[in-house]
Amino acid sequence: MKARIHVTLKQGVLDPQGKAISHTLEALGFDGVEKVRQGKFIEIELTETDEKKAGEQVEQMCKKLLANMVIENYDYKLVS
Amino acid sequence: MKARIHVTLKQGVLDPQGKAISHTLEALGFDGVEKVRQGKFIEIELTETDEKKAGEQVEQMCKKLLANMVIENYDYKLVS
Repeated sequence: MKARIHVTLKQGVLDPQGKAISHTLEALGFDGVEKVRQGKFIEIELTETDEKKAGEQVEQMCKKLLANMVIENYDYKLVS
Repeated sequence: MKARIHVTLKQGVLDPQGKAISHTLEALGFDGVEKVRQGKFIEIELTETDEKKAGEQVEQMCKKLLANMVIENYDYKLVS
């Protein structure tokens, strides 16, 4: 089973990477870019095949390691 | 219109961040982690409302700035 995890900055948290992308896109001539936010995308292959157990495991991974819960949100999807 | 873009390392390209996560998850006691790959997740809000035009714009953004086509793949979804 594979977990596809997104870790994104919470609303209101400054995102310098997103700002850098936004400015560079403008400099390259792309019009109509309103807002850019950059986050992390993590794919984890798990040996666990039970969806409920895999979900609990991924929740714990996010809370303990992958996301900084003060400034980041996470969400994930499980695919088999 | 919003573009949700994933930029991931190509198969076979060394992923030290993924490896670091994998080792740390093991050290934290998580069993059954087979493989971890880390990529980037970028959300861009566009003023463009035409899906075809927005798609072309995002393709160009990925090729010119967001992804290093030598070592990375990209894919995206447009949501309105």
